[in-house]
Amino acid sequence: MTSSDWLYENFEPAGSSIGFRVRARLDEVQSPFQKIEIFESTDWGNVMLIDGAMMVTTRDNFLYHEMMSHPALFTHPDPKRVVIIGGGDCGTLREVLRHPGVEQAVQCDIDEQVTRMAEKYFPELCESNGDPRARILFDDGIAYMAKAATGSLDVVIVDSTDPVGPAEGLFNKAFFESCFRALKDDGILVQQSESPLVLLDLIKAMRAEMGKAGFTTFQTLPFPQPCYPTGWWSCTLARKGQGFEFREADARAKPFATKYYSAEIHKGAQTLPPFVAEALTR
Amino acid sequence: MTSSDWLYENFEPAGSSIGFRVRARLDEVQSPFQKIEIFESTDWGNVMLIDGAMMVTTRDNFLYHEMMSHPALFTHPDPKRVVIIGGGDCGTLREVLRHPGVEQAVQCDIDEQVTRMAEKYFPELCESNGDPRARILFDDGIAYMAKAATGSLDVVIVDSTDPVGPAEGLFNKAFFESCFRALKDDGILVQQSESPLVLLDLIKAMRAEMGKAGFTTFQTLPFPQPCYPTGWWSCTLARKGQGFEFREADARAKPFATKYYSAEIHKGAQTLPPFVAEALTR
Repeated sequence: MTSSDWLYENFEPAGSSIGFRVRARLDEVQSPFQKIEIFESTDWGNVMLIDGAMMVTTRDNFLYHEMMSHPALFTHPDPKRVVIIGGGDCGTLREVLRHPGVEQAVQCDIDEQVTRMAEKYFPELCESNGDPRARILFDDGIAYMAKAATGSLDVVIVDSTDPVGPAEGLFNKAFFESCFRALKDDGILVQQSESPLVLLDLIKAMRAEMGKAGFTTFQTLPFPQPCYPTGWWSCTLARKGQGFEFREADARAKPFATKYYSAEIHKGAQTLPPFVAEALTR
Repeated sequence: MTSSDWLYENFEPAGSSIGFRVRARLDEVQSPFQKIEIFESTDWGNVMLIDGAMMVTTRDNFLYHEMMSHPALFTHPDPKRVVIIGGGDCGTLREVLRHPGVEQAVQCDIDEQVTRMAEKYFPELCESNGDPRARILFDDGIAYMAKAATGSLDVVIVDSTDPVGPAEGLFNKAFFESCFRALKDDGILVQQSESPLVLLDLIKAMRAEMGKAGFTTFQTLPFPQPCYPTGWWSCTLARKGQGFEFREADARAKPFATKYYSAEIHKGAQTLPPFVAEALTR
C-alpha cells in the first residue's frame, strides 16, 4: 500500500460511494459478528470499517456523535438514565456523559471487539469509559431491552450499523416495543436513520414500525456526515406523548463545548427541507 | 463497462472521494478549456464531470442550484438585474428566473460546450433558456465583469468550478473588485465556496480577498451536496453595507416550488456550526 491508495465504500442501495486516501491498514479482526478493519488515512485520521462499511473517522465522527446525543438529551425534560444500544466505539457514550444530570449511561454493544479497537485507535472517544456513571456491556441489545425494567429509562439511543446483519433486528416493531415499554412516559427513543437524501423510504418504514410499537411523535434531524453514504445523515427521535419541547435555554447554557451541535443548529435541524418533509408525510 | 462499474472523483486536497455506480459513458468532449464527460449512473441520473471533477447529477443538483440563487435573491431588497458567472449548465439561471421581479439574468460561461452538453443531457436545467429575460453568453467572466457598467447590477452569482484551471481567477481580489464596482450599493455577490468541513482555509482566504475588494459583510451558508467532496458544501454572500436583511415573509410566500430551499432552511443555514464559525473568525 502506497500513499496514493484509496479506500472506497461502495454503498449498493444508493449507487453512491465514499472514499478516503489511506496510508496503511493498521489492524483487522474477525469477531464472532463481523469483520472490523482500521486504516490510517492521510487527512481523516484513523478510519474504522465494519464489514466494509465506514463507521468512524477521527476527523468527522463528532458530527454523528453530537447529533445522536445532544438533541435528545436537550429535548427530554430531565434525562437521568440513558441506554445506548450499539455505539461500541464509545463516542456517543462520551457525549451523553457530558450532561451533568445523567446519573447512569449503559452502553450495550454485542461486539466487544469494536470497543477494543476503539480504545486502541480512537482513544479520545473512550476517554469517559472510566466515568463512574458509565456501564459498558457486551451483550445482545435486543435481549437487553427485552429484559429492561418497565418504565425505567429516560432516553434510549440506538447507535447501530446499517439495518443488515447484526443490526437488522434494531429497526423493527418488536425491538421498538421493548424500548417503548422500558421508557418512562416522557422518555425518548433515538435511532440513527440513514441518509435523508436517498433512504427516505427506510426512514418512513422505520417511523411506521416505531408507530406500531406505540410511539406517537417523531422528529427526524438531518446533519452532515462525510464518512457515511451521500455525506448527509440523520437521526430520528420518537416519543410517547405529543410534541418535542426543546430545552433551548439549557442548550444555550450547556456547560460543555461542542463542535457541530448548538442550540441554533438543533433548532435549524427541526425544520426539514421540503422534499424530505413531503416524503415523510406522504 | 458493466452495470457494476464505479466512477470516482478522488479529491486530492482533502484526501476524500465521491463516487457513483455508472452504466455507460454517454459522451465526452475536449473543449478549448476543459474535458467534459457525461455518464449515465444507475441511481443518480446523468452525471457531468469537468476535468474529472463531478459537476452535476440529475438527482442532486437541486440542492446546489437552489442554494446558489434563492438565499441571495431573498436577501437583496429587490433584485432586478442578475449576472451569473460560470453556471454553464443553466441550473442556476433557471432558479434565478423563478423570481418574477428579475428583469434580466445574464449567464456568462467561458465554455459553450458545457451548455451544449447540459441541453442534451440535463434538458430540465435548460428549460428557462428561452425566457426573454435570459441572456446566455459564452465569454470570459473575468473580462465581462471588468467591462460591466458601474453600479448596474443587483446580484452577481459566481457559479464556478474549483479554484484551479479556468476558474482560478474567480477567487481573487481583482475579480472581486470588478464585482464590487459593477454592483449597486445594495448589491450582493454570491460565490460557491467549497466544503466547510475541509476547506475552511479556502473560505477564509476567499472572504479576505472579497474584503480587500471592498466588501464588508459576509455570510457563508452550508448545505448538503452529495456529488461534491465530503457531501457538504457552501455558498458565501458578500455585500457592501452592513448586515443581511433576509426577506423572510417574501421567501415564505414565494410563488414557486423548491425541493431543498425554504424560508426555514435559509434561516437555519445562517447560523454556522461552532467549528465553522470559530474557524472563520479566527
